[in-house]
Amino acid sequence: AGDVAAGKGKSASCVACHGAEGKVSVPMYPNLAGQNAMYLEHALQAYKKGERNGGQAEVMKAYVSALSDDDIADLAAYYASLKP
Amino acid sequence: AGDVAAGKGKSASCVACHGAEGKVSVPMYPNLAGQNAMYLEHALQAYKKGERNGGQAEVMKAYVSALSDDDIADLAAYYASLKP
Repeated sequence: AGDVAAGKGKSASCVACHGAEGKVSVPMYPNLAGQNAMYLEHALQAYKKGERNGGQAEVMKAYVSALSDDDIADLAAYYASLKP
Repeated sequence: AGDVAAGKGKSASCVACHGAEGKVSVPMYPNLAGQNAMYLEHALQAYKKGERNGGQAEVMKAYVSALSDDDIADLAAYYASLKP
């Protein structure tokens, strides 16, 4: 399972679109706060594997390309830990 | 914009995985309650257009294939209206 504190430390690039506490100001992006960690991990892996394409998915693919499996698990744990 | 009441009426097929009030019991699926309507609509359209693939996306593609643009907007409005 991911490490919440480590995930927080890795979340700097996520904030611009997904908000400082995982709640967005731009409604075309998803809130992440309180989302299930397992789903978040699956979604990030799907972007990394190129299973999600088109539109904003291209942005996500660029961001996740440099993430390791541990990075993804940590980020998922961090966002799941936040209050929705 | 979608119609919340109409969306609720169209949500019967969503409940098995996404929960009666948009909160899941199975952690591999995303909570939908309180998610941004614009994002939900975008995500459903992405499944319908085949932009999301692999894993559970194949399940979603099957479900959304029969949905009209109005259906998608109504479902997005409904789930966005629920308390997270």
